[in-house]
Amino acid sequence: MGKNIVEKILEAHIVSGKVKEGELIGVRVDQVYTQDATGTMAWLEFEAIGLDKVRVPLAVSYVDHNMLQSNFMNADDHLFLRTAAARFGAYFSRPGNGICHQVHLERFAAPGLIALGTDSHTPTGGGMGMIAIGVGGLEAASVMAGMPFEFTMPKVVKINLYGKLRRPYVTAMDVILTLLKMLTVKGGVGKIFEYGGEGVKDLSVTDRATITNMGAELGATTSIFPSDENTLKFLKAQGRDYQWIPLEADEDAEYAEIIELDLSEIEPMIAQPHSPDNVVAVRELKGMKVNQVCIGSCTNSSYKMMKTVASILKGKTVNEEVTLFINPGSKQVYQMLAREGDIEAMISAGARILESACGPCIGMGGAPGSGQVSIRSYNRNFKGRSGTKDAFVYLASPVVCALAALNGEIVNPLETDLGINEVSDPETFLINDNMLIPPRKEKEAKIIKGPNIKEVPVKAPLEESIEAEVLLKLGDNITTDDILPAGTQVLPYRSNIPEISKFTFKNLDETFYERAMNAKNKGGGIIVGGENYGQGSSREHAAIAPMYLGIKAVIAKSFARIHRANLINFGIMPLIFTNPEDYEKVEQGDILKLNGLIEAIKSEQQYEVINLSKKNSFKVYSNLNERERDLLLSGGLLPYVRKKVIQ
Amino acid sequence: MGKNIVEKILEAHIVSGKVKEGELIGVRVDQVYTQDATGTMAWLEFEAIGLDKVRVPLAVSYVDHNMLQSNFMNADDHLFLRTAAARFGAYFSRPGNGICHQVHLERFAAPGLIALGTDSHTPTGGGMGMIAIGVGGLEAASVMAGMPFEFTMPKVVKINLYGKLRRPYVTAMDVILTLLKMLTVKGGVGKIFEYGGEGVKDLSVTDRATITNMGAELGATTSIFPSDENTLKFLKAQGRDYQWIPLEADEDAEYAEIIELDLSEIEPMIAQPHSPDNVVAVRELKGMKVNQVCIGSCTNSSYKMMKTVASILKGKTVNEEVTLFINPGSKQVYQMLAREGDIEAMISAGARILESACGPCIGMGGAPGSGQVSIRSYNRNFKGRSGTKDAFVYLASPVVCALAALNGEIVNPLETDLGINEVSDPETFLINDNMLIPPRKEKEAKIIKGPNIKEVPVKAPLEESIEAEVLLKLGDNITTDDILPAGTQVLPYRSNIPEISKFTFKNLDETFYERAMNAKNKGGGIIVGGENYGQGSSREHAAIAPMYLGIKAVIAKSFARIHRANLINFGIMPLIFTNPEDYEKVEQGDILKLNGLIEAIKSEQQYEVINLSKKNSFKVYSNLNERERDLLLSGGLLPYVRKKVIQ
Repeated sequence: MGKNIVEKILEAHIVSGKVKEGELIGVRVDQVYTQDATGTMAWLEFEAIGLDKVRVPLAVSYVDHNMLQSNFMNADDHLFLRTAAARFGAYFSRPGNGICHQVHLERFAAPGLIALGTDSHTPTGGGMGMIAIGVGGLEAASVMAGMPFEFTMPKVVKINLYGKLRRPYVTAMDVILTLLKMLTVKGGVGKIFEYGGEGVKDLSVTDRATITNMGAELGATTSIFPSDENTLKFLKAQGRDYQWIPLEADEDAEYAEIIELDLSEIEPMIAQPHSPDNVVAVRELKGMKVNQVCIGSCTNSSYKMMKTVASILKGKTVNEEVTLFINPGSKQVYQMLAREGDIEAMISAGARILESACGPCIGMGGAPGSGQVSIRSYNRNFKGRSGTKDAFVYLASPVVCALAALNGEIVNPLETDLGINEVSDPETFLINDNMLIPPRKEKEAKIIKGPNIKEVPVKAPLEESIEAEVLLKLGDNITTDDILPAGTQVLPYRSNIPEISKFTFKNLDETFYERAMNAKNKGGGIIVGGENYGQGSSREHAAIAPMYLGIKAVIAKSFARIHRANLINFGIMPLIFTNPEDYEKVEQGDILKLNGLIEAIKSEQQYEVINLSKKNSFKVYSNLNERERDLLLSGGLLPYVRKKVIQ
Repeated sequence: MGKNIVEKILEAHIVSGKVKEGELIGVRVDQVYTQDATGTMAWLEFEAIGLDKVRVPLAVSYVDHNMLQSNFMNADDHLFLRTAAARFGAYFSRPGNGICHQVHLERFAAPGLIALGTDSHTPTGGGMGMIAIGVGGLEAASVMAGMPFEFTMPKVVKINLYGKLRRPYVTAMDVILTLLKMLTVKGGVGKIFEYGGEGVKDLSVTDRATITNMGAELGATTSIFPSDENTLKFLKAQGRDYQWIPLEADEDAEYAEIIELDLSEIEPMIAQPHSPDNVVAVRELKGMKVNQVCIGSCTNSSYKMMKTVASILKGKTVNEEVTLFINPGSKQVYQMLAREGDIEAMISAGARILESACGPCIGMGGAPGSGQVSIRSYNRNFKGRSGTKDAFVYLASPVVCALAALNGEIVNPLETDLGINEVSDPETFLINDNMLIPPRKEKEAKIIKGPNIKEVPVKAPLEESIEAEVLLKLGDNITTDDILPAGTQVLPYRSNIPEISKFTFKNLDETFYERAMNAKNKGGGIIVGGENYGQGSSREHAAIAPMYLGIKAVIAKSFARIHRANLINFGIMPLIFTNPEDYEKVEQGDILKLNGLIEAIKSEQQYEVINLSKKNSFKVYSNLNERERDLLLSGGLLPYVRKKVIQ
């Protein structure tokens, strides 16, 4: 029987289990990378495991999130990460070198490999024909310690592409927005999307990377493209053709499902507030006034998209009522644009050029004004993520964004003569790795920790029973931004759990922290959620902070994949309502009791929850694989790994 | 009798009084400009006065301070400033267009004129042969309302330059650092420095502007250069030669004092923490390790200095242990550097390019790590201003900065072969004013105010007597940064007095706000200071916030000029110890009583302070000119002006 690409790569890396949907498998990992917002914790966790050196072929520590440096904390984090990289044998990508996903695609990603990244947009690497998965920091630390990466094999869904995009008016961003409209933010849960068909030839590696990057918004484990001539061309232009292998699905490969998509029929699309799947055609919003435009991010920072933007802006002026921010995704792209006059064209038009970093995409600067409309070529538009609670954030292609910046309102590219030609990737990228510090053998290198960098808290092993208060009852699609916001005020505390915990659920309920701290000494707390609890960013702090605040369990209708894994990694039980209607049986303030936990976890994983306040009860289940069971019993991944790798 | 340049300009603008040292004079003002951090308040004040349109030939509203946009507040301020400029007939310089002083020098400054700016570095314009003075926002609003600018005529001190700088190793920055070493931060109080002599020919307009800009650190009212061939050359290159007039002192002009300075003897200098006058030769710090370097700001952002920096960096890499920030001072400079490959050279070397804005100079991003050393081509190194309380900030020329960035330590330029030629100003600057929105006649334009923009508080007329608590007793050289810090946390509240007041003296005493609010209902508070109270930035918030908190008087050994004026403008009495030793007679917590205030102000301006707690007394005086007396009696400048201009 033929194999699809996902099966081929996984089988070449298998360590335990069988590559079959629903099975727990363990694979060898080739590359692990971190970014600073999640990475400080990941490297503290790696240090806590107790090894001298990373046990993966390649580890890279990037800095791209906390770059504003409003106080000493960011710079201290950068120093910690640089010295930790020197100590443990990782590459260090200096601040200014670019966004992890873009730089990784340019300089490290290669077909056929498996990479993990401590960021939800790690699937960007899928554009290169690699399996690239976003994980929590502790998962990354565990793999860097030489443990296999263990996960439940998702369904593999084929997306069959044909036709060609109407370039330069329609872009890769419109492809993924179309898919988000079709499939929604839950459509990818438990799935890997494998792209195939004649249409893939129409997409360059960076186009593909835009699609796999934002595939994260589908809730998918990851997305992947074949490795073909386009892949070779990109690698060659990066001076890395020796890393190329061809990779395609066998003709008789099987898939759980096949989705057909005609590229030639795609039109410019736009996601409306406040979800990436709230997508309509750009023509439907024609004429809508715009106050702010942001172009760049890990989703749309390729050389050719940025050059397209520069061509549209050239010789013109950003509309008087609009602020235009541009953040190039990498030093490579930025420097090439500078060399070729594109940065000058952007400056001349009145764009505000930000550093090669995540910037406004994660609310790290560039917040819109009160109630303003911001159109962004970014990947997420969750309420408040921009830094402005009442802003209206839309997501669209860089072409739609650039036109909106010039016109002060939404313009449909298809109804305009852009007056520009299609931009192609260059034959050769400008290669200068001087901001990547290679791994060294500095076993004695000193790790420098500023005063804001605190110890990793560790949970005790699972209790026999829980009696805890429902501290919060939430609706569907709660994001990790809701659980623990990003933004300038919060991000600097990523390596200081006692401090960052104060922001837990703060945007939803100002009193949460105080109530949780009170409940902590009285048996702890429980969170009740709806469907797709914990979607969005991979931040493990959305699990560590609740753990630190004494949260014992989250009971929800369903969980987003990465966040569920993070909960387990930090010893918090993710429980699912057996009967979703029982969600109505619980209210905030209720005291819930669960008995016989350890026995139940080891056997049928069904639990009875007694609502002491309401004097009723209902059933929940946990659906843990063998490893997850061990983790919860041990108190989480950190004590578990330490036991395994330290003799 | 011959006249000096200062006398010539003032006499051509005189409205009241006589241009004679110590006399109160009133002059007609040609240009007024604001920046956003002080400007939101200035424009709110202008609005409160009640006029339809500004009554000065030119008003410009710049945005350069609050550019990070960590939340809705900055963007709301920008929108307010844009709509207020449209409403009241001012130019609006859009965010990204550059730092007010640099842009003003490029596009508006002209010899022989008088300009006021709501920023302490307004004297930058003195490089153009104009009298340019930093004032509080309310003073600016008053002048924009058509009132003359009234002030006590300072001493005019000549600085006689001869010789030539050892370029490119020694720069204009080293000239002003040398003067700061000679004269200290108090050396310019009550003085205008007029540069002259053969040596001025060696200095271009931008060199001169660096010197007059940082002349603010001497405590001087302003500094000025002649207008000569170099001035004409610069204006011509800016397409504004029609604005040139020659301007020099008569041969028999008189000065209160003459200081001689041989440019050829100046060597690279550096100001050590935590004061701009703590200056030593760079060679004395040779080899000192550096963690961060910042180049740019209103002090050192000229085209030629930035190109010099690019030449030094070209083809090299910023030292692994250093972060290098560069913030070009204007869109003009930035775009020219981009066009000519200099931005590419900077990016390639690993510099982090920030927006054309004040940035790290005012602690708006770019904070150093804990206890780190930062070398900056900026103008101030007060403790904590960088955003990091325990950082060590040094000030030096862009050349010294660039060398430190490459070497990771202080290098003396004179002991290095820079391998570059001197860079000159271009024959023609790139002129593109598309980010300057010209004044319009939009009487009906709507001013848009976000929720953080609050009303201007107004003080009641002076009381007959004060009985108040000494809330804080301070030492010498307290800066306006000490009184009301800048930085990302505080600056966004510049148009919200109740909120920003919470940060008053916060870095010196966390309890101040609470204690002041308590005292407010019990007669108010008094601050006791040492010498040179209120030096540094011109922010009037350092007077408004204390006023709002009920501070009735500041008793000090001496005051910095702008802050003293701001205190009076907001109805706070600036009182001087008649006998400086009486400073010892007061302690924090003492209750002081002053009787017969109104009569005393009108007559001899001597007051007896009774210390009810210590049961002693001492004398203070206020030294008010006629106008200042009227202001204090009226409750400040706002009610005073309103009465004068509204019929």
